[in-house]
Amino acid sequence: MCRWLAYFGDSIPIEWVVLQPKHSLLDQSRHARLGATTTNGDGFGVGWYDTGKQPGLFRSLHPAWNDRNLRELAAHISSPLFFAHIRASTGTAVQETNCHPFRYSSWLFMHNGLVREFPRVKRDLLLKIEPSLLPEIEGSSDSELLFYLALSFGLQQEPIAALEKMVGFVEAVGESYGIKYPLQMTTSISDGTRIVIVRYSSEGKSRSLFCSQNVQAIKDRFPDDERIQSLSAETRLVVSEPLGDVPEIWKEVPESSVGIVQPGEDELRPFRPRR
Amino acid sequence: MCRWLAYFGDSIPIEWVVLQPKHSLLDQSRHARLGATTTNGDGFGVGWYDTGKQPGLFRSLHPAWNDRNLRELAAHISSPLFFAHIRASTGTAVQETNCHPFRYSSWLFMHNGLVREFPRVKRDLLLKIEPSLLPEIEGSSDSELLFYLALSFGLQQEPIAALEKMVGFVEAVGESYGIKYPLQMTTSISDGTRIVIVRYSSEGKSRSLFCSQNVQAIKDRFPDDERIQSLSAETRLVVSEPLGDVPEIWKEVPESSVGIVQPGEDELRPFRPRR
Amino acid sequence: MCRWLAYFGDSIPIEWVVLQPKHSLLDQSRHARLGATTTNGDGFGVGWYDTGKQPGLFRSLHPAWNDRNLRELAAHISSPLFFAHIRASTGTAVQETNCHPFRYSSWLFMHNGLVREFPRVKRDLLLKIEPSLLPEIEGSSDSELLFYLALSFGLQQEPIAALEKMVGFVEAVGESYGIKYPLQMTTSISDGTRIVIVRYSSEGKSRSLFCSQNVQAIKDRFPDDERIQSLSAETRLVVSEPLGDVPEIWKEVPESSVGIVQPGEDELRPFRPRR
Amino acid sequence: MCRWLAYFGDSIPIEWVVLQPKHSLLDQSRHARLGATTTNGDGFGVGWYDTGKQPGLFRSLHPAWNDRNLRELAAHISSPLFFAHIRASTGTAVQETNCHPFRYSSWLFMHNGLVREFPRVKRDLLLKIEPSLLPEIEGSSDSELLFYLALSFGLQQEPIAALEKMVGFVEAVGESYGIKYPLQMTTSISDGTRIVIVRYSSEGKSRSLFCSQNVQAIKDRFPDDERIQSLSAETRLVVSEPLGDVPEIWKEVPESSVGIVQPGEDELRPFRPRR
Repeated sequence: MCRWLAYFGDSIPIEWVVLQPKHSLLDQSRHARLGATTTNGDGFGVGWYDTGKQPGLFRSLHPAWNDRNLRELAAHISSPLFFAHIRASTGTAVQETNCHPFRYSSWLFMHNGLVREFPRVKRDLLLKIEPSLLPEIEGSSDSELLFYLALSFGLQQEPIAALEKMVGFVEAVGESYGIKYPLQMTTSISDGTRIVIVRYSSEGKSRSLFCSQNVQAIKDRFPDDERIQSLSAETRLVVSEPLGDVPEIWKEVPESSVGIVQPGEDELRPFRPRR
Repeated sequence: MCRWLAYFGDSIPIEWVVLQPKHSLLDQSRHARLGATTTNGDGFGVGWYDTGKQPGLFRSLHPAWNDRNLRELAAHISSPLFFAHIRASTGTAVQETNCHPFRYSSWLFMHNGLVREFPRVKRDLLLKIEPSLLPEIEGSSDSELLFYLALSFGLQQEPIAALEKMVGFVEAVGESYGIKYPLQMTTSISDGTRIVIVRYSSEGKSRSLFCSQNVQAIKDRFPDDERIQSLSAETRLVVSEPLGDVPEIWKEVPESSVGIVQPGEDELRPFRPRR
Repeated sequence: MCRWLAYFGDSIPIEWVVLQPKHSLLDQSRHARLGATTTNGDGFGVGWYDTGKQPGLFRSLHPAWNDRNLRELAAHISSPLFFAHIRASTGTAVQETNCHPFRYSSWLFMHNGLVREFPRVKRDLLLKIEPSLLPEIEGSSDSELLFYLALSFGLQQEPIAALEKMVGFVEAVGESYGIKYPLQMTTSISDGTRIVIVRYSSEGKSRSLFCSQNVQAIKDRFPDDERIQSLSAETRLVVSEPLGDVPEIWKEVPESSVGIVQPGEDELRPFRPRR
Repeated sequence: MCRWLAYFGDSIPIEWVVLQPKHSLLDQSRHARLGATTTNGDGFGVGWYDTGKQPGLFRSLHPAWNDRNLRELAAHISSPLFFAHIRASTGTAVQETNCHPFRYSSWLFMHNGLVREFPRVKRDLLLKIEPSLLPEIEGSSDSELLFYLALSFGLQQEPIAALEKMVGFVEAVGESYGIKYPLQMTTSISDGTRIVIVRYSSEGKSRSLFCSQNVQAIKDRFPDDERIQSLSAETRLVVSEPLGDVPEIWKEVPESSVGIVQPGEDELRPFRPRR
């Protein structure tokens, strides 16, 4: 089990949302409320877009709460689109190459959930990965494999279709081994221009996922908060569990749905695994 | 806040008490029940006596629960007297030199608690340390300073007197700064032949500390457990909080007391800071 | 490029050969003389046999020369058969799961060398691995794959035949991609009863490998060294490059050969890849 | 022994000078040419100024050459004034709090060299540190103490005078213990507006230190290098040993001298320890 956060909007210091809010992601690394585990201390990662070709990536196997470099970076790096993730290993090694986000070219991917009975299905999943992509895999986690499967199914061309094919494939493989609910997943991907989020699980009881309300509502709620007043109408935050303690500024992402956070109007539609 | 464990008895694999019991120290690193914090993930350490001149020392800044080397060592090293400690930093850096146990010559020391307003009193404490010992200090924690103060007060000659003088001194310094309750401490020291434990705090409300009942009672309680039946009558375990879930095999160490775990009869008496 | 050492003989503290000799393995981590690189600072590992079911394993991503836990373990653990390895990454991530030795059941494996153009051939190698073994792979190195290939070819039943089949297969795959010299390898494996070493490379110019002369010759050379005089006639050391500076106590392992270090007479014979 | 680099000029990506040149600082972490040791693999650090109140600080105990986060940060962070340092421990622990640069308020400090017989003089040095500053010390290195001594002597008010008093004091203490050459030091400090560098040693044979020639000369030398042509006339680089292999673009900083790199004309004058 893990917790994650995706930010889209004006460029802000990463610490504004990762470190400073009440019940921030940093706080969730020790005291998650809604997750399967309360401690998410098996590494973390931050990925951020700037003007460079590739997003930046900082991953560490230390717990987020005691890593000083994370505090420094979050204070000194600003970005208009960034991901942050804290990990609770479901068994695989605690190492940077198992930390999210994963990066390929200009794409970032992060995930909360698991492929059930991963050791049994791992080989079938590996075989489906585009041969030219296979050597890029560096860790041993199920999450990284999901990313490379999605890439193999065309993530860079049609992200949602690729994610639906990926999930359909993972479920088909799982079923062929008699695994009842092969996949549990909330995930977020980006190419730097928009964010695609999915909340889905084979059993239809997915891990929690929330999106911030429209900015005007939040500004009305916090009339004296300078930072919040400074945010543009485009600002959105997607989180595994709400930051702060004002629940009404968050709306739950519906079960089995995919959302696109982008300039202008966002989109939300059912997520349908394809076979 | 931290959790610790001291073992005295026949030589056993360290994992028998550190990793394998229900609610083991490893489990407490994520889910402590009685402590000020539930997560003790800011490093850990194990110190063990064998036939060498110095005890062995393995310290790591990783959380105990995800460190594979700890599992290996605990499985492959046996010892008749060992300490294990999991750390929750009260602010100082997460680094091996701040992990317990601390070692000097044949002595080991570990501590749960804190020196209140440590930054204010640190200089006075440093100045009292025997000049020849001062360069041995490698970390920045209050605990390491308590150890070197005790050494400066003669720990190697008269351990209990030295601990009482150390506490008296720390309290006198604290009071000179107007600090109400200068010290909170459960501690354990050894030279490899016996273990001295102290439960004390300036406010008279010390952190929890428990000692195992006599071995025969435990054997009677678990007639079918081969390992427990194999233990000698000398076996004792002192812990910050009980392992397992059979509370009656543990007795609380009384407030403001010092105990000596040694071959033959143990001792228990009031702990009286000296000025 | 890496350096390694394998010890067979009476139980001795690991530090006797890993830390203490002139030009020890620890020293080679900073100043290797015969290797392709002088610095081997990308992690290290020690594997040792004792009375337990599995050998112990301590691996770290720190340089060997500055890891204090290595010094402690090497001083406090004695073993009659152990491996030690220092790593110089040829590109793959510096993480514990890429450090040697690798362990499977009672077997240890370590390697110096490389699979040439590994990213191109990796998928073919992965596909040949016994499906039930595949999920055991945790790192991303070529070396770990060689181990699991050898296991897939029957290492536990017929070690030398399995190694010859493994090398034959790797060479066949490499050739199918037009790779001139697919494999460079000195390797050491053990199940705790004997050690099998191989010096081989497709180009017939293998990395250096040395075996200690018979113990009597060494005793004659160092009549006043108590430790050396205490060694049994069974003691043997295999090393990437000589320890100490008395070259005549080492003999080079011949090109393209396999040796068996075992109780009684050792064996040495040509190593012939099988297709 | 260590190696360091200080950059002053237009804002550029840190990687331009830390990672990318021939014989870059990264390369020097494995193969220093002019230093007392060739390997500087005991941690590293980068400090950089931006628009924030404090400079950013990224320190790690890994070798610079294999730390991926360093590559990411150096590629994604630009700054008009930054320090980078690679460490070779002279005995003290390898931990982040012993890595340079050290930071206090808006000041950065880094050092190459050593206080001779540091354990003997450490207590005297500690006692001279302003009591309110003492608790800020987190590591165990001589270098951090030099920084806090300089702060205690008024670094923030009159940097050069404070450095001269600090050196005078360290030499006086050393002499009182009969230490022949108490101090070896090249050092760099900054408050974000200018850089003060010192090359000094008690024996008058200081570690190497070089400053880049004026930018026009370098531009003339590399007429086709776009980056170099883009640099402003204010650009300066101070380094322990030259980057690249065009020695004529570097001039040695004279023995026993202090330089100020600042907007407009730089200054260079003799460095005279004060008692």
